[in-house]
Amino acid sequence: MEHKDATVAVIGAGDFIGAAIAKKFASARFTVFAGRRHGDKLAPLVADIEAAGGRVVGRSLDARKEEEITTFLQDADMAAPLEVCIFNIGANVNFPLLETTERVFRKVWEMACFAGFLTGREAARLMLPRGRGNIFFTGATAGMRGGVGYAAFASAKFGLRAVAQSAARELGPKGIHVAHLVIDAGVDTAWVRERIKEALANLDPGRLMRPASVAEAYWQIFQEPRDAWSFEREIRPFAEKW
Amino acid sequence: MEHKDATVAVIGAGDFIGAAIAKKFASARFTVFAGRRHGDKLAPLVADIEAAGGRVVGRSLDARKEEEITTFLQDADMAAPLEVCIFNIGANVNFPLLETTERVFRKVWEMACFAGFLTGREAARLMLPRGRGNIFFTGATAGMRGGVGYAAFASAKFGLRAVAQSAARELGPKGIHVAHLVIDAGVDTAWVRERIKEALANLDPGRLMRPASVAEAYWQIFQEPRDAWSFEREIRPFAEKW
Amino acid sequence: MEHKDATVAVIGAGDFIGAAIAKKFASARFTVFAGRRHGDKLAPLVADIEAAGGRVVGRSLDARKEEEITTFLQDADMAAPLEVCIFNIGANVNFPLLETTERVFRKVWEMACFAGFLTGREAARLMLPRGRGNIFFTGATAGMRGGVGYAAFASAKFGLRAVAQSAARELGPKGIHVAHLVIDAGVDTAWVRERIKEALANLDPGRLMRPASVAEAYWQIFQEPRDAWSFEREIRPFAEKW
Amino acid sequence: MEHKDATVAVIGAGDFIGAAIAKKFASARFTVFAGRRHGDKLAPLVADIEAAGGRVVGRSLDARKEEEITTFLQDADMAAPLEVCIFNIGANVNFPLLETTERVFRKVWEMACFAGFLTGREAARLMLPRGRGNIFFTGATAGMRGGVGYAAFASAKFGLRAVAQSAARELGPKGIHVAHLVIDAGVDTAWVRERIKEALANLDPGRLMRPASVAEAYWQIFQEPRDAWSFEREIRPFAEKW
Repeated sequence: MEHKDATVAVIGAGDFIGAAIAKKFASARFTVFAGRRHGDKLAPLVADIEAAGGRVVGRSLDARKEEEITTFLQDADMAAPLEVCIFNIGANVNFPLLETTERVFRKVWEMACFAGFLTGREAARLMLPRGRGNIFFTGATAGMRGGVGYAAFASAKFGLRAVAQSAARELGPKGIHVAHLVIDAGVDTAWVRERIKEALANLDPGRLMRPASVAEAYWQIFQEPRDAWSFEREIRPFAEKW
Repeated sequence: MEHKDATVAVIGAGDFIGAAIAKKFASARFTVFAGRRHGDKLAPLVADIEAAGGRVVGRSLDARKEEEITTFLQDADMAAPLEVCIFNIGANVNFPLLETTERVFRKVWEMACFAGFLTGREAARLMLPRGRGNIFFTGATAGMRGGVGYAAFASAKFGLRAVAQSAARELGPKGIHVAHLVIDAGVDTAWVRERIKEALANLDPGRLMRPASVAEAYWQIFQEPRDAWSFEREIRPFAEKW
Repeated sequence: MEHKDATVAVIGAGDFIGAAIAKKFASARFTVFAGRRHGDKLAPLVADIEAAGGRVVGRSLDARKEEEITTFLQDADMAAPLEVCIFNIGANVNFPLLETTERVFRKVWEMACFAGFLTGREAARLMLPRGRGNIFFTGATAGMRGGVGYAAFASAKFGLRAVAQSAARELGPKGIHVAHLVIDAGVDTAWVRERIKEALANLDPGRLMRPASVAEAYWQIFQEPRDAWSFEREIRPFAEKW
Repeated sequence: MEHKDATVAVIGAGDFIGAAIAKKFASARFTVFAGRRHGDKLAPLVADIEAAGGRVVGRSLDARKEEEITTFLQDADMAAPLEVCIFNIGANVNFPLLETTERVFRKVWEMACFAGFLTGREAARLMLPRGRGNIFFTGATAGMRGGVGYAAFASAKFGLRAVAQSAARELGPKGIHVAHLVIDAGVDTAWVRERIKEALANLDPGRLMRPASVAEAYWQIFQEPRDAWSFEREIRPFAEKW
């Protein structure tokens, strides 16, 4: 089967959600550009996609650096026109307010918000001349509600949501679909597994989300006809309390 | 091709959104039960679905009457298990506050909110013993924001949204997916056409939504895996201001 | 000390919040019109206010009846110009969805939403010719979030909030201040005492609100200069979780 | 008349809102510590307050620098216990997304969000041992909604709101009142005057807010009894559209 003449960039292609998104779009014959901090960790993902007949480029990427984002997305766009760009970097930390250092607050913002801004802006720069494209941001409950201990993380995620809203309102009428996917659940990731391992025996399996289901949600958003775009979608497992 | 052993009920099967939903699910081999105030107006919809090889029952239904809702949904469930129930009755009116009569306020509420409550409750009664099902409500911008002149309509739509939220939180953990689809746009309906006919020459075609796109959104929600359900989705055309 | 040439109407002048509001405004030399379903229960409030030198009229009032609301507010306005009208009727009930009867759903709406609409509209009718006045609505957490078991109550409170929003947007530019006070707490009322009496030993006293504090919040809203009106204020005790 | 044994710190004591807040609290016999980037511009404010018999210290302060915030608040607290700390730095800019530089995005965030975090954290550090205090943040419409051209400003203001929410939930039960005042209006400031000077002839005077009214709102929040604290208050002139 032919590949599409289209690229999907995944910025923050971690082992769980990011990898699932990459596989989903690769299986739909998109060329995938996958970036994460330590590119060597992308080897299993690249191997999986290639074994399935997909096309993928894995790269080390520090998304907080303007020139790295610009180069990454330009290279993606040269492989084939950039049709979808998904920003998927998290930085979930929890500290009491007094123990939230300047360094942590700044770093979390750089990873979860500033890098998202750079990503959205540079993707838009490539897409605007064509009048089409998709820019999606992975949000979290902390982007909607600042809970105890989340001054740093919630602040960054609120900020990312604002970038997404502002971009959506500016770019929508120019043909670019901007969306913000809010994951209101524990996703089955290394981080969550670590946090809940003692609780696993008691864990309600109806309250964890599979990474593939997040990828499915992005795929749905990508499918929306342009006369019925959604900007925000909050997803949670059926048994989650909210 | 075989029909599924499953029924979809559309309460408020008007000529535009409701009809598009009915056709979408009929084309996916569901048996469709379509109800609207004046059942004789369902003839073209029934004819269309049957001509395409679908199964449909059209009925007169006053959704404000408990016994009519109960009977309609029970009959649907007897045809084949009720898998999806969509409440789609609107009642868009705009009056200055002082000119909003008691009669209008009450009637709009009965159509857009009370009937939705009855529908949700009776659908849940049929679905709960099976631990599965889908109950969807069509919302509107007026369900999120009470604008000038919308005391009656917004009040009813806010109330419907509360019913949906409360039902979602109670029924989700029991396996029933409750969702609220907010249509933030003019949909291409008779009502909208009437309102804008003088403006049609100047109308930005990027600001109208096709009924089929609403149906597509419901179809997406129906497809969501149960570890990543969305409750609310707000859709609008790409060129809409928001 | 002279009385003001101004009346405050309290619709839903129950023993706790309503009574506290009535006393607060009476102590500021307003004439108070206090209405509640069973007017004979107003005797202690009337006695208290009069003992303190205040002016008050207590009346039986079924706020779900248009003509009763109209007469009550007209009479208040004849005593002295109606300057503040506060709608304070609640109807807090909790039932599983399947056990929420048509009768309960309708009655809760009539008390908590429909009566509020009538109140707001009739107060506006009296205030608009003067280009000034204040119309305040008592809201609840259930007006912001539809929790499990609150299909009826949340639906009514959401609906009331919509009425308030719509009225605020229409009447504000005409000089009438419309506000919605959201009480996100257990207030020290008979209903709450009954509900928590077994828990009282363990109750965190930092999580209950005194009725006088609600009255104080209304007094603050009334004091706002018209270039800095607030529409919505959510109040909770310092130790409340939210 | 005696001064209170209490200090109010105003971080971002500009010529309009900040100055009005400083004067309001000074007139209520608080010692005021006023900081702004260029401390020499504080001379008129200091002169005004002192002429009225108030106590005030004006200082140059770069609120983006942790050590400057720490020193400023510690000095304030040594003059008299820090009872109120108000963060009032804005950074309103509007650029199309593609023209929003990394430098602008970062600077706006440092001024409007990061400095607010430092302020809140250091104020809390001084107040927590006493179990009382007030920390207030000046928000804006852009903190609630990311409009076209506001990627930088809205992102920072959203982030500040998250800091305020997170702090409120953590510090409230410890006796510290955290609030977020959203100003949904043009305030009569130099910046607004500049922007609208050509429009002034047509400007609806009912749509501008006086700085003194913002100060009044803060004074109200400060007066709230602790069993009825509000976290967020959105204020706008009576004729504002919203």
